[in-house]
Amino acid sequence: MTVEPGTRTTPAQQALEEELIGRVLASFDNTPDPRLKQIMQSLTTHLHAFIRDVRLTEGEWNKAIEFLTAVGHITDDKRQEFVLLSDVLGASMQTIAVNNQAYKGATDATVFGPFFVEDAPEIPLGGDMAGGASGQPCWIEGTVTDTDGNPVPNARIEVWECDEDGFYDVQYTDGRIAGRAHLFTDDQGAYRFWALTPVPYPIPHDGPVGKMLDATGRSPVRAAHLHFMVSADELRTLVTHIFVDGDPQLEIGDSVFGVKDTLVKEFAQQAPGTPTPDGRDLGDSSWAKARFDIVLAPEGV
Amino acid sequence: MTVEPGTRTTPAQQALEEELIGRVLASFDNTPDPRLKQIMQSLTTHLHAFIRDVRLTEGEWNKAIEFLTAVGHITDDKRQEFVLLSDVLGASMQTIAVNNQAYKGATDATVFGPFFVEDAPEIPLGGDMAGGASGQPCWIEGTVTDTDGNPVPNARIEVWECDEDGFYDVQYTDGRIAGRAHLFTDDQGAYRFWALTPVPYPIPHDGPVGKMLDATGRSPVRAAHLHFMVSADELRTLVTHIFVDGDPQLEIGDSVFGVKDTLVKEFAQQAPGTPTPDGRDLGDSSWAKARFDIVLAPEGV
Ligand SMILES: [Fe+2]
Ligand SMILES: [Fe+2]
Repeated sequence: MTVEPGTRTTPAQQALEEELIGRVLASFDNTPDPRLKQIMQSLTTHLHAFIRDVRLTEGEWNKAIEFLTAVGHITDDKRQEFVLLSDVLGASMQTIAVNNQAYKGATDATVFGPFFVEDAPEIPLGGDMAGGASGQPCWIEGTVTDTDGNPVPNARIEVWECDEDGFYDVQYTDGRIAGRAHLFTDDQGAYRFWALTPVPYPIPHDGPVGKMLDATGRSPVRAAHLHFMVSADELRTLVTHIFVDGDPQLEIGDSVFGVKDTLVKEFAQQAPGTPTPDGRDLGDSSWAKARFDIVLAPEGV
Repeated sequence: MTVEPGTRTTPAQQALEEELIGRVLASFDNTPDPRLKQIMQSLTTHLHAFIRDVRLTEGEWNKAIEFLTAVGHITDDKRQEFVLLSDVLGASMQTIAVNNQAYKGATDATVFGPFFVEDAPEIPLGGDMAGGASGQPCWIEGTVTDTDGNPVPNARIEVWECDEDGFYDVQYTDGRIAGRAHLFTDDQGAYRFWALTPVPYPIPHDGPVGKMLDATGRSPVRAAHLHFMVSADELRTLVTHIFVDGDPQLEIGDSVFGVKDTLVKEFAQQAPGTPTPDGRDLGDSSWAKARFDIVLAPEGV
């Protein structure tokens, strides 16, 4: 009954811990909704496995309760610290992953983020989604096809991004609409527009989640990115980003784990005066250009 | 690359999900405190395993965020819904279990609960801890020994319980102190006192945790119990309860999983007029008696 050298618990202790798990699982046996039952039993199994794995102390359990309480108390209509917590633990990204299964050559999905807004203005092909937001102009072009390579005309493309100071329009209090738009692909499934070269920005890190990142030596900064949501009839809606090849934050690590190698694109820097694809006069400003060819999976995969 | 019949994911999909976990784990590699690193990496591992096991949908993820937010918002100085959540998932009890390892014949520990109060009144051996709380009088007696069978004189025994309406003194607003006391064992390690026969009571179930219990067909009621905390020099402090053999809630299930078979005791009912152990005159009241022999583990096991 004593603890064997090299083991952490006695067989009697293990039996006691397992018997407890059995009782907790059984308590959900009469859940009317079978899906809820499955979720609660799986959650319980993994929660208990965690506590047993780390041999959680009572002091650590207290800290966990205090942490969750602080996360709850800073959360309000404008700030969702539980989403942030899910994000920085990679749980949001894993949920995206299981709901957007890899399919043939379809473009990878990534996190939606908190900054999408319905009814962003429509721009024509070649139009400017910056809407006055500051930053280096950037020409984005590409195609939308299905996984058999067929072009998808009239696909709806929503794009949104922060300005060069790292803020989305909705983070300003003046009601501006900038750095967001939607457009549609042409008959060949092609699209093109002016955006801003993306820059890194930190997630809100003045709360308990920020403290956790700090205590674990992690950066709150997201790798520079431009958000896309692409939808078309009978094809799976794609929510994704493109990232900027060479962004140092890609090495440091995106704070919400949104990066996939396939989504890292070359943003080719163009010296001031380099002719633009559509003849736009950018004066003495440098600019960049990037290509993003989008492949949509069939609906329901 | 397509999903095989009978499997839920492709190898490509599994690789993608595992690669994500690898990145999240690696993000904690530079945590200065090795214990915090271990906890965060284990937590991440189990959290991702849960999401993958149930193939959590984005709608379910949203519900989880809403649930946690509601738990956070109902929590204040007086109400700790996260503790309640931990309790009904058996996480509190599992934490108790891993911190109070089974040791020889030591008495099992169980949950502490929210109703302990420091500085409860001292009563003499044979005194009454009810302090005016309503309920059936109950004589409790027993011994405190170590795991070698040696009596432990002068062990401090804290006891607390609810009244016959299922409320602890601190749940009333009139400042009463009742249903709690402390006493000390005699030279032979024996103790005895008057208490109340324990009755079942529900945990607070008007909040999100109560809704979850309801949705899963679970009872919020705790099996009837009397709390003990027993401490003595060089012995492990024991926090436990005794339960009432025959209490129907033992079959239905204790809502926080505090019951262990070894802690279920016979509360022998005594007809009105049956002589009491100490000659106390209970008039025409029935009473009960129970025995609880307590064995304390050595400190540090
Ligand atoms: Fe973003
Ligand atoms: Fe209690």
